[in-house]
Amino acid sequence: MKAEYINPFVSATRNVLETMAKIECMPGSPVLKSDNLSWGIISGVIGLASSQLKGNMIISFDLGCILAIVDNMLNETFTEITQEVVDAVGEITNMISGGAKRELSEMGYTFEMAIPVMILGQKIEITQLSGPCISIPFTTPHGNFVVEANLAVEKS
Amino acid sequence: MKAEYINPFVSATRNVLETMAKIECMPGSPVLKSDNLSWGIISGVIGLASSQLKGNMIISFDLGCILAIVDNMLNETFTEITQEVVDAVGEITNMISGGAKRELSEMGYTFEMAIPVMILGQKIEITQLSGPCISIPFTTPHGNFVVEANLAVEKS
Repeated sequence: MKAEYINPFVSATRNVLETMAKIECMPGSPVLKSDNLSWGIISGVIGLASSQLKGNMIISFDLGCILAIVDNMLNETFTEITQEVVDAVGEITNMISGGAKRELSEMGYTFEMAIPVMILGQKIEITQLSGPCISIPFTTPHGNFVVEANLAVEKS
Repeated sequence: MKAEYINPFVSATRNVLETMAKIECMPGSPVLKSDNLSWGIISGVIGLASSQLKGNMIISFDLGCILAIVDNMLNETFTEITQEVVDAVGEITNMISGGAKRELSEMGYTFEMAIPVMILGQKIEITQLSGPCISIPFTTPHGNFVVEANLAVEKS
């Protein structure tokens, strides 16, 4: 996966969290994901596909982080992962991949998005059938999360 | 999700298992999935996407079933879930969704496939952000599996 594909995911993530949840997040340095385990307590996975490009984006939150985000999004206080929190993770996954889709499309990489799948649980073994997955860590005042992107360009 | 979308997944499943693993499987009656839990010990998830259609296919195997399938595919004996078994689940997920893609394309529903994601563990909470998911149970002489399909046609 080329480095130039990463920035659209970083900017879409910052933009969605600031717009939807009024939360500023700071990206750290992208790293090659070294295991197949879910990073946080809840993860959103979305398939990205076109005749040109195939891949997945995964976003995985720690508990404090996702509760603060959904508190702000829905203007309610959540103390545990309810169905509303799970659905919010799906909406966030959709919005971030949608933002990255727009930016990548301007760079000449077009694709459509599948439907988000949310997986509950930490250190769940989640393996992707393909090459290296880039993991971008993000910090917020309320907790942390990671965005993992794995895109294979088939034809150019 | 319309009933007419189901048959291509059933025929692709039977065809792939017979061709790749020489295992005959019998489909049962499709049911509406009533919970958000992974059915088997290992599941393959693949996103399906086009401007017309969005969704996921999930295939989930019990231990005896997947070990027998991979034994036959790779001509080796497996007694537990190794990385080769996980990768084989990804290949099977790719091949079945590819077969269904071809048949659905002949019916006028076109889409591309993302990259398979394999999730290890039984009763893992896996929720899809969208409507009803159809679950098709299959039996084999070695164990059972289910194919779950969730397709939303956006424009026709």
